[in-house]
Amino acid sequence: MNRPRPYNFAAGPAVLPEPVLRQVAEEMLDWHGSGMSVMEMSHRGREFISIYEEAESTLRELLAVPPQFRILFMQGGGLGENAFVPLNLARTGKVDVAVTGSWSKKSAAEARRYADVRIVTERFAPSTEWALRPDADYVHVCTNETIDGVEFHELPSIATAPLVIDCSSHVLSRPIDWSRVGCAFAGAQKNIGPAGLTLVFVREDLLDRALPVCPSAFNYKTVAEAQSMFNTPPTFAIYVAGLVFQWIKQFSHAGKTGLAALEQRNIEKAALLYSALDGSSLYENRVAANCRSRMNVPFHLKDERLNDAFLAGAKEAGLLQLKGHKSVGGMRASIYNAMPLEGVYALVSYLNDFEKRHG
Amino acid sequence: MNRPRPYNFAAGPAVLPEPVLRQVAEEMLDWHGSGMSVMEMSHRGREFISIYEEAESTLRELLAVPPQFRILFMQGGGLGENAFVPLNLARTGKVDVAVTGSWSKKSAAEARRYADVRIVTERFAPSTEWALRPDADYVHVCTNETIDGVEFHELPSIATAPLVIDCSSHVLSRPIDWSRVGCAFAGAQKNIGPAGLTLVFVREDLLDRALPVCPSAFNYKTVAEAQSMFNTPPTFAIYVAGLVFQWIKQFSHAGKTGLAALEQRNIEKAALLYSALDGSSLYENRVAANCRSRMNVPFHLKDERLNDAFLAGAKEAGLLQLKGHKSVGGMRASIYNAMPLEGVYALVSYLNDFEKRHG
Repeated sequence: MNRPRPYNFAAGPAVLPEPVLRQVAEEMLDWHGSGMSVMEMSHRGREFISIYEEAESTLRELLAVPPQFRILFMQGGGLGENAFVPLNLARTGKVDVAVTGSWSKKSAAEARRYADVRIVTERFAPSTEWALRPDADYVHVCTNETIDGVEFHELPSIATAPLVIDCSSHVLSRPIDWSRVGCAFAGAQKNIGPAGLTLVFVREDLLDRALPVCPSAFNYKTVAEAQSMFNTPPTFAIYVAGLVFQWIKQFSHAGKTGLAALEQRNIEKAALLYSALDGSSLYENRVAANCRSRMNVPFHLKDERLNDAFLAGAKEAGLLQLKGHKSVGGMRASIYNAMPLEGVYALVSYLNDFEKRHG
Repeated sequence: MNRPRPYNFAAGPAVLPEPVLRQVAEEMLDWHGSGMSVMEMSHRGREFISIYEEAESTLRELLAVPPQFRILFMQGGGLGENAFVPLNLARTGKVDVAVTGSWSKKSAAEARRYADVRIVTERFAPSTEWALRPDADYVHVCTNETIDGVEFHELPSIATAPLVIDCSSHVLSRPIDWSRVGCAFAGAQKNIGPAGLTLVFVREDLLDRALPVCPSAFNYKTVAEAQSMFNTPPTFAIYVAGLVFQWIKQFSHAGKTGLAALEQRNIEKAALLYSALDGSSLYENRVAANCRSRMNVPFHLKDERLNDAFLAGAKEAGLLQLKGHKSVGGMRASIYNAMPLEGVYALVSYLNDFEKRHG
């Protein structure tokens, strides 16, 4: 492939770093002289164990995960975790959920299978205003709402119960304040790697609270004790994730390296795009400024009759998958870690051109 | 890579067809001119939908799956299904299990979380001798025991309850008599593709029996109604599986094509290996002739002090991952679909050479 790749704004599965894809292609038939593709390796063989251990330790380093947290490499995605979190943690059957958008709403609905659920807020508001129960088993928050474009820029500080965060769509885009977290989960298909891998970070004191009906393969304690090898893990996805972690570790930008550099670039990318939308009379982003997501930027054309022309022109300009989620309509630009600054410049340039022609 | 690839006898994840790996590498940065890797595609975009639909229809054709069966592309592997099968089917809480080896034993243990389980046999015996209950919700059978090397060469005919088969380690190595089956499941990592994808085939009349505590993302009806897109499916694994299905469809051997050709080659490979073991005085396979697996051939060196020398010499000869499962010891050669006849010849030749030197 000699022409430049188009810019892919999909909400997930989503753009991956090009050097990672190149390395995956190069190693496809023979990983490090082993004579095997990573897909063909026994998960218990020393080759894959080394891949797994390096992925785990790099991730732990990038996010400064404290030793009292276990990192589990699981399956089932965010919607799976909507069940597995209460199955593992709702020991007394009381779950508090902050509903700030579509994903936390789904989490609340699924938790009702296993617990009495209280919605402690129905909008983005400081946690001091939430109707928390002192005896809840945990408080669930979606820290970045992929569909609604709403992000917590600071984690709520909850003293009464462990905080569970669904950080699927902004994990590794910024640090996590682990002192405020009991459990975190993230589907891989936004900032980490291929769909089908789910990361769970769980504090050790929460490992032994599962309900009897929790499937063994999704019991955090069982999975932790088996170093994520109770069942065969999604080995190839873990390998790709490990390469993405290495890419982040080596990333540099604006005099910084690693996650700090990536966060800095994410801030710049988001500022660039929001500024273009806010300065326009054709487009609008409807999210309050204090909770705008750095990762998912939904926007509408004020004249929705222009939607098809906008999308067709974008594709022509090499800007892919900008159509908004069907539940909210309009457009959405997901600008995850692997989206270069140039991609956002190209989008902003197209936004301006299109406005000149149609505004 | 210019030298020939070694032969990989791993029990799973396991050897994949080399042409499939080459195609995956070639398409890694740009699938069919889309400008995206398959890993980067939205699961709801037309590119991935076309990949999904072709994989599903090719699989349906290869296994002659009748229209009243739905094919679900799920996650969680065989150990996940050990919970999800009873969660979906054990409506009245009665499960019969035939224990013929390690995997069916695990299935029985997990089903006890959700149902009263009766072990209807503890050895490989005709189903007419099983202590079946007339009112069981289903009867569970593992049709190929990966660890023990025991295979059902004909499916049991059960009139009283739906038969559920765990066919993970021999799926697509032979036809399935669907008239005898209510539900079948298979982890992908033996004959299908990368670990992390699980196939479930379920007869439509069994779709609406789930227990209330069944997680939505693993509820067969929910997944069937969403064409396996209730949660984000393991898209890349589905893509690789689809290429493997195409490889099988185009496979030819001994004047046959497709699954029939593959089955013929599997018969020949197994005959070759068992014959070498049976004709030797150094090695032994301890499985009764009527239920020897065509896929997984465990064997022991009668003098176990030679084990390390055997494995070291095998690796030297380009024969990888022959060590037996830790629970049974000895050796195991898994000779799945993607293992060429030449790989089995090479193994037999090594068996003979080693015996000459050490016998």
